[in-house]
Amino acid sequence: MPNPTASPDAGPPVHAALDHFGSADGTLTIGGLPVARLAERVGRTPFYAYDRAQLDRRVVQLRDALPAAVKLHYAMKANPFPALVGYLAPRVDGIDVASGGELLVALDAGAPPAEVSFAGPAKTAAELRQAVAAGVLVNVESTREVVLLEAIADELGVAARVAVRVNPDFELKGSGMKMGGGPKQFGVDVEAVPDLLAGIGAAGLGFEGFHLFAGSQNLRAESICDAQRQSYDLALRLAEHAPAPLRVLNLGGGFGIPYFPGERPLDLAPISANLHELVERARRDVPHAGIVIELGRYLVGEAGVYVARVIDRKVSRGHVFLVTDGGLHHHLSASGNFGQVVRKNYPVAVVTRHGGSERERASVVGPLCTPLDLLADKMELPVAEPGDFVVVFQSGAYGASASPQGFLSHPAVVEVMA
Amino acid sequence: MPNPTASPDAGPPVHAALDHFGSADGTLTIGGLPVARLAERVGRTPFYAYDRAQLDRRVVQLRDALPAAVKLHYAMKANPFPALVGYLAPRVDGIDVASGGELLVALDAGAPPAEVSFAGPAKTAAELRQAVAAGVLVNVESTREVVLLEAIADELGVAARVAVRVNPDFELKGSGMKMGGGPKQFGVDVEAVPDLLAGIGAAGLGFEGFHLFAGSQNLRAESICDAQRQSYDLALRLAEHAPAPLRVLNLGGGFGIPYFPGERPLDLAPISANLHELVERARRDVPHAGIVIELGRYLVGEAGVYVARVIDRKVSRGHVFLVTDGGLHHHLSASGNFGQVVRKNYPVAVVTRHGGSERERASVVGPLCTPLDLLADKMELPVAEPGDFVVVFQSGAYGASASPQGFLSHPAVVEVMA
Repeated sequence: MPNPTASPDAGPPVHAALDHFGSADGTLTIGGLPVARLAERVGRTPFYAYDRAQLDRRVVQLRDALPAAVKLHYAMKANPFPALVGYLAPRVDGIDVASGGELLVALDAGAPPAEVSFAGPAKTAAELRQAVAAGVLVNVESTREVVLLEAIADELGVAARVAVRVNPDFELKGSGMKMGGGPKQFGVDVEAVPDLLAGIGAAGLGFEGFHLFAGSQNLRAESICDAQRQSYDLALRLAEHAPAPLRVLNLGGGFGIPYFPGERPLDLAPISANLHELVERARRDVPHAGIVIELGRYLVGEAGVYVARVIDRKVSRGHVFLVTDGGLHHHLSASGNFGQVVRKNYPVAVVTRHGGSERERASVVGPLCTPLDLLADKMELPVAEPGDFVVVFQSGAYGASASPQGFLSHPAVVEVMA
Repeated sequence: MPNPTASPDAGPPVHAALDHFGSADGTLTIGGLPVARLAERVGRTPFYAYDRAQLDRRVVQLRDALPAAVKLHYAMKANPFPALVGYLAPRVDGIDVASGGELLVALDAGAPPAEVSFAGPAKTAAELRQAVAAGVLVNVESTREVVLLEAIADELGVAARVAVRVNPDFELKGSGMKMGGGPKQFGVDVEAVPDLLAGIGAAGLGFEGFHLFAGSQNLRAESICDAQRQSYDLALRLAEHAPAPLRVLNLGGGFGIPYFPGERPLDLAPISANLHELVERARRDVPHAGIVIELGRYLVGEAGVYVARVIDRKVSRGHVFLVTDGGLHHHLSASGNFGQVVRKNYPVAVVTRHGGSERERASVVGPLCTPLDLLADKMELPVAEPGDFVVVFQSGAYGASASPQGFLSHPAVVEVMA
């Protein structure tokens, strides 16, 4: 299949330009500080830094593109760092959580329970109890949850708020991950939803709407628009079976960011036009329903960098290795071991202390005992020495929390806002 | 390439028999307790349990196979759980660590510093300082480490004990991971070792020997024997350049365990014969040298199980999903996301409370938001209901510590000795 994001006439694919961070005196800055100075402020390497200005930039881009009537939610599974969730909470319209642990962080961050929703295919009875006590919206994923929620609501004397997570009969084409279509552990098969809605009505739960999440990490605007339109149509059909009027229609997310050579940023314009159309339709079809877009990676991925320090420079049989204190244990995804079929390089930069401009082909590796511990494979990089810094861009999502930090018992990675 | 461990005449490949754990009243026992009772003792799921009797069994097998003169080391990177390291420390002859953090656990476990060695391609100055202060053997991996060790030994007034980790000019054929041969970040290229040895002599460091680690997770005894012979020959050639007589010759490990259908246990007999020969040769060639075999996975992998509880049973479009509280966040390797090119099923069992014998084809998934969260893909398993247990065998190595436990902010997995 041809890569739709690679330009056919431009030689080997390259990484998308990453010029959103600034520079001062010729060196990269994060949060306005040169990388070396930021490292001194953090006090040790490796660390993740999340740039507030970049989070703001992305929220502004989205607010410009999305109709005012569309609610922007943060799917905190992408990055649950409490200070980051705390920064985003007042800047978005709601937070989507995926566990009882995430629920606590979202509430601590000040997210109003009315605007928090909880999805996940194996919610425990204890987690459902937490959700009802907190007053958040539960995206129900099976009949079992309906039965449990009825008992919990009764016992606590608190109404349970529910939406139905639907496993649609289509998928989000070209996605990095598909969470809908075919047999899935996620949600309830669309053909079984009418029965489930009857059960929700009979159980006296507070039905509010539907949640559809077809896939993630998609760079094709047209695929996303297609899935949104299909999700909208599906929700409207299902709403005819609902025990109460539709108030929440969560169309999921799926907005991708460019990681690998040849990938280009998602074009928001067609998505904006599509959502304006859907909002117009909803105004007529379901006047009390609010459309929600739920974004994780797209909100935070580009705002984060992972910074490691070069510990050793080794030349083995003509091949240069920059051996760093960072690696797979902190950034599994950049090592190519988080669902990737073929390992490709993340965008990686080297920030030298001497500022030299000489370049060479080098691999960036970590301190672990395994050849999997590879942050950059044979990349063209500035010539680096011990003490210099390696920066992995596009690292704000699925980084620290999605990595095996206990592997080889190295210290946990530090996370900071910048 | 044909799989040498699959029998050609036996239909589709199956998992190796896993009958080393016991059973009582028709149900699987771990550490002598039925799984359900063990889960009550642990107090919650999911958990890892490491069976002391199985650790003993493996140590006995190895002591029977290895010549008395060969030292058996535990490479604790495979499993750094302190109680497990404490159990093994008095049962093996030494412990190999891969970080300053592991060093502390090994010393806490009572391992004598004289029998602890420290390898790793990016040891920090602080870690080298710890190693010298502790009096353990440092497997030097670059010229930089020699320079640092000289300064540290001088400053602390403590002799630095060193061996040289060699990147050989051959590899361990058929290994899951290759740490030697070609350009590598591990060790020092064999052709550069004579110069490094001169530097070690000039720096006044206490040279003791060589460390060669060609690869891991190998099920072909002949490949392991080949690598051991080649490592022995190489070390003897290099010893001519050494500033002191050879006292330690660490031949690495690489002994694999069967994980996937078609894989069969490693045959220790040829390895035993080979090591007896090498010990004889060493008695003549290097009478003061002790041969070390360093095993991680082989010592602990089969002694461990991962136990999760079925939370929900979902049938989506004819496909049965057992949705459990365990998953990729605790057992990355079983999900197929730790270096595997093609995902295959670990050996998985279902322990039902009702003890029924009806079977079905089912997938075991976890609580996460991603389709990667898959512990068993379309396996033939007993029909299970919420509350039943899923047991993943061969889980004693690279489990809890090598998994992204922070992913989705679920509670950390419990580990217990059984």
